Amino acid sequence: MTLSTEDLQRNLPDGWTGDTSGISREFDFPSYADGAAFALRVALLAEKTDHHPDALTISWKKVRVTYVTHSRGGVTDLDLKAARAVNDLTSS
Amino acid sequence: MTLSTEDLQRNLPDGWTGDTSGISREFDFPSYADGAAFALRVALLAEKTDHHPDALTISWKKVRVTYVTHSRGGVTDLDLKAARAVNDLTSS
Amino acid sequence: MTLSTEDLQRNLPDGWTGDTSGISREFDFPSYADGAAFALRVALLAEKTDHHPDALTISWKKVRVTYVTHSRGGVTDLDLKAARAVNDLTSS
Amino acid sequence: MTLSTEDLQRNLPDGWTGDTSGISREFDFPSYADGAAFALRVALLAEKTDHHPDALTISWKKVRVTYVTHSRGGVTDLDLKAARAVNDLTSS
Repeated sequence: MTLSTEDLQRNLPDGWTGDTSGISREFDFPSYADGAAFALRVALLAEKTDHHPDALTISWKKVRVTYVTHSRGGVTDLDLKAARAVNDLTSS
Repeated sequence: MTLSTEDLQRNLPDGWTGDTSGISREFDFPSYADGAAFALRVALLAEKTDHHPDALTISWKKVRVTYVTHSRGGVTDLDLKAARAVNDLTSS
Repeated sequence: MTLSTEDLQRNLPDGWTGDTSGISREFDFPSYADGAAFALRVALLAEKTDHHPDALTISWKKVRVTYVTHSRGGVTDLDLKAARAVNDLTSS
Repeated sequence: MTLSTEDLQRNLPDGWTGDTSGISREFDFPSYADGAAFALRVALLAEKTDHHPDALTISWKKVRVTYVTHSRGGVTDLDLKAARAVNDLTSS
């Protein structure tokens, strides 16, 4: 089930923004390579959990991760769970 | 030196589009993992040549690569060279 | 169930060698980066299928993949299946 | 120039062992994916510096990195420098 705007805002993980069309967060890194390795880590998580970012963008020392559940037409609990898991990667 | 619109259009590598603010191409893959591995291959090329994509976006079975030389304020020969090198990756 | 020596030899995928302590294959690549990207592709497969190589070694233009099911104390059908899936990656 | 056994032992970076045929260190990770992402980080460093590990092995929650300069027939300052750079990756 997709989340309402209210439920979504109340449950957005730390640092994430967005609305019912998708949630995203940008992460900063000390180098391009650190960002690329983080992006791989997110891709490995996606394969493991079978829930993939809508977009995973590596820019210069920045990586942006976006989730939305296209098959449901909105943001779901799976997206929130993935966003929390991505946050956990940055603290390990 | 940045390229003029005319020089840019005349020299765009196969499959690439864009203008003086940046050039990009989207690549399709049979699986998410194939796309992610290709993106990492592009990141390895970037570190080797010290010329990095402005954006490298992994979506569902698609990867978009964008180049522009920010330090020069436009698209340069380095971007065209990188774009050709990325094309070469897909045929290996 | 672990495979007997006879069953193992009869079912080894193309290019793989080994015995009941493990099966492996070495793959050659035109560049170091191509090998590294292939290794990451194998790692993504491992996370997706939850069956991981015993060892995945990136050397100069070579990658060696080894499978054995430690929890069973030998080579199992899961290892053969993974080896076949790795072979499929090289032909895509 | 290759290092003598004495010079090598005196300058081995923290956690590295070995002799004039090669130096190596094993790193532990909380998950397979964390190890794989670290290995990619080492591969990106290798491409950037054009000095590659002799072997980079991803096992279950462990990654082993080995350096030797084959073209010189022994361990050189380039290997020590790479080993120190890899150590720095783990503290970032």
